[in-house]
Amino acid sequence: MFRKVLIANRGEIAVRIIRACRELSIRCVAVYSTADRTSLHAQIADEAVCIGPAATKDSYLNMNAIIQAALNTGADAIHPGFGFLSENAEFAKLCEANGIVFIGPSYKSIEMLGDKAAAKETMAAAGVPVIPGSKGAVKSLEEAREIAENAGYPVLVKASAGGGGRGIRRVDSPEELEAQMTAAQQEAKNFFGDDAVYIEKFLINPHHVEIQIIADKHGNYIHLCERDCSMQRRNQKMLEECPSPIVDEKLRAKMGRAAVTAAKECGYYNAGTIEFLVDENRDFYFMEMNTRIQVEHPITEEVTGFDLVKAQIEIASGKTLDVKQEDVIMRGHAIECRINAENPEKGFRPSPGTITALYMPGGPGIRIDGAVYQGYTITPYYDSMISKLIAHGSDREDAINKMRWALSEFIVEGVDTNIDFQLEIIRNSDFKAGKYDIGFLGRFMEEKQK
Amino acid sequence: MFRKVLIANRGEIAVRIIRACRELSIRCVAVYSTADRTSLHAQIADEAVCIGPAATKDSYLNMNAIIQAALNTGADAIHPGFGFLSENAEFAKLCEANGIVFIGPSYKSIEMLGDKAAAKETMAAAGVPVIPGSKGAVKSLEEAREIAENAGYPVLVKASAGGGGRGIRRVDSPEELEAQMTAAQQEAKNFFGDDAVYIEKFLINPHHVEIQIIADKHGNYIHLCERDCSMQRRNQKMLEECPSPIVDEKLRAKMGRAAVTAAKECGYYNAGTIEFLVDENRDFYFMEMNTRIQVEHPITEEVTGFDLVKAQIEIASGKTLDVKQEDVIMRGHAIECRINAENPEKGFRPSPGTITALYMPGGPGIRIDGAVYQGYTITPYYDSMISKLIAHGSDREDAINKMRWALSEFIVEGVDTNIDFQLEIIRNSDFKAGKYDIGFLGRFMEEKQK
Repeated sequence: MFRKVLIANRGEIAVRIIRACRELSIRCVAVYSTADRTSLHAQIADEAVCIGPAATKDSYLNMNAIIQAALNTGADAIHPGFGFLSENAEFAKLCEANGIVFIGPSYKSIEMLGDKAAAKETMAAAGVPVIPGSKGAVKSLEEAREIAENAGYPVLVKASAGGGGRGIRRVDSPEELEAQMTAAQQEAKNFFGDDAVYIEKFLINPHHVEIQIIADKHGNYIHLCERDCSMQRRNQKMLEECPSPIVDEKLRAKMGRAAVTAAKECGYYNAGTIEFLVDENRDFYFMEMNTRIQVEHPITEEVTGFDLVKAQIEIASGKTLDVKQEDVIMRGHAIECRINAENPEKGFRPSPGTITALYMPGGPGIRIDGAVYQGYTITPYYDSMISKLIAHGSDREDAINKMRWALSEFIVEGVDTNIDFQLEIIRNSDFKAGKYDIGFLGRFMEEKQK
Repeated sequence: MFRKVLIANRGEIAVRIIRACRELSIRCVAVYSTADRTSLHAQIADEAVCIGPAATKDSYLNMNAIIQAALNTGADAIHPGFGFLSENAEFAKLCEANGIVFIGPSYKSIEMLGDKAAAKETMAAAGVPVIPGSKGAVKSLEEAREIAENAGYPVLVKASAGGGGRGIRRVDSPEELEAQMTAAQQEAKNFFGDDAVYIEKFLINPHHVEIQIIADKHGNYIHLCERDCSMQRRNQKMLEECPSPIVDEKLRAKMGRAAVTAAKECGYYNAGTIEFLVDENRDFYFMEMNTRIQVEHPITEEVTGFDLVKAQIEIASGKTLDVKQEDVIMRGHAIECRINAENPEKGFRPSPGTITALYMPGGPGIRIDGAVYQGYTITPYYDSMISKLIAHGSDREDAINKMRWALSEFIVEGVDTNIDFQLEIIRNSDFKAGKYDIGFLGRFMEEKQK
């Protein structure tokens, strides 16, 4: 086992990793920017090294400064957390070149899965369902018609060279295909100087369901059930739950097998998450794989009783996974609400500032993963997270009830927060009925603004 | 189900009960003394009623003021928590007379179990093991010899009219009996004017192991495993764990059956705890039954996933227990440390005052049941509890590891605390090996003072 781990991150995930290190009797080194001098993670680690000024590129993304800090303190491994350098293959490679273990998958896996289009091809080849459509550009209207027919309408015609929402047309029926394809080609040519287009099935308000997997370096793979992350606003997750209200045991087993296949295909080890879109027919499609621990990992830990961060460290050190798929037993239901310093009334604008009063709920089933305290100043440089509030109940209703009282007890003064907004979601009748998809929050916001 | 519950208590247990009420959609009324105006329980309840001045006899023990508050606010039930009026049969009777449901057992059960000597007789008659010895006074040396022989040495010869440690002699072998009995009789006569003595087996440093039971009003009984509360100082529990390191599955089943028998014998319903002493041979003896929720109930909740406080309310309202004995499944191991504002260096003298800085740990497996916040003033009128820190791990070692980092993160400024003392216990090698009995803390303190 490692003697000393450097944590190349900040805030609550850094604190989370420090706690895992403590349980494994590993000393830990925090790194911090000048703006993070008073951060909890820098205060509770065994050692703390300043790695540069506030701007992330100069500190938390500063590979050389971080590697140097690891070498200077004698750390034998680096945990990257999430965000920052966690999915940077170059950094993982740099660690290796300096004789430091990167706590995550191999840099080859990161590289392979970082190219989203290539990853999709790999998965399709391995039999993992991907969103149906053309392989690359379509050459003719006839080909387009055949592909659209096979994928099933509605489909999207998308500029191959596209981006920023340009050169995309939705086609609801065969009759519309020719006109929309021509329009997309025209727009593609105008914007990108290239009229190549490809076709992809359009999923109407799908669910975002992701499968947590974990694998050791010796070829053992398990999945740890799913998380439903459909409650998102502009791709920002706001609330997650485990299990998903739309996944039953059969679908779970199917998606779990697909996720393990996907991971095996890349020779993957350590913790990873396979994100799927699930449509109204409960068909699921590979979206991408995240090669790191996720923000929402605690709900999986609560339901399965499996410590993901500790497992990450153990696996990186070469330990064999001692849990088999049949040992993974789900108990109850967990929900996570991300509590941020932001103002939902003002387009969720971040609200940095000093927390002048703080009371965080506790009690049965409540877990708080945070890194703030009364008197702490949330700077404008990084995310605006105050803490992750996790409620674990005997079933979904119980978890919702616990989350409701926990949110209503939560007090933060000095900065704006999304606590009341989260309470509105928790009290929403569609949410309570488990009826929501990735379009829910958008519609919810529109409704509010009326 | 009740519409409104009045909570006849304060501090963390009042907050705990409010949370349970919220999950059951019951409105709750807090009561508070003038010293508790800024208490969390009074702030987060739906309604709060001042019931008198700081002195407990004038407020939290003031039955009339509490009943009046319940009648005025239209509460249909009262939860007494622990301490204060929770084991007061007269109060339970008064509730009933006023048409208010007392959330606990019947006043008859409270009365019956309140008389400790009578309770012991009842249990012995029902076949629950009690500490062996004579039934009442022994009449002759021959009788004493026979009883001591049957109970097994060492025994105690105790003055029937005794008290305050007078007229007690320990007898280690048959040879000593006559001399010690004569001495005890002499002392008894001198101190109490009555030379009657009785004989009881002397347990050498036993373990305090208690069984949690729960029963509904329809004759359904289950036990929820044991808690080891041997870590106590002058009968004050300091740290508790579930399961007990000295109880195996067989002993658990045996003690569980005895506890259920004890409860049945009293026509008991609601939550209750049967306290046993367990000796070095793993023989156990009924000590007493607590007819209320216990301070240390959260560790049972963590390990069994059963919500005891919610069950108390449901059972009081007439609900049938829907969990059978075979549904009670233990998961992992939980430890509770009571974090108090007190100074272990000064004989655990309470340290009231204002909390000027407070950081309470969170993260995986950590539960905090508390009612304080930064800026809160701990008054000298009541107990000095800051919060209960509960760690739930996959096994005992994991729970200990979690408790260790949680204690080391815990920051309280402005008052003295026992946090460092708890850390010493958690790090103690005998504790880690599960080797401690009710004499441990006394020996530990002696060792420290050397």
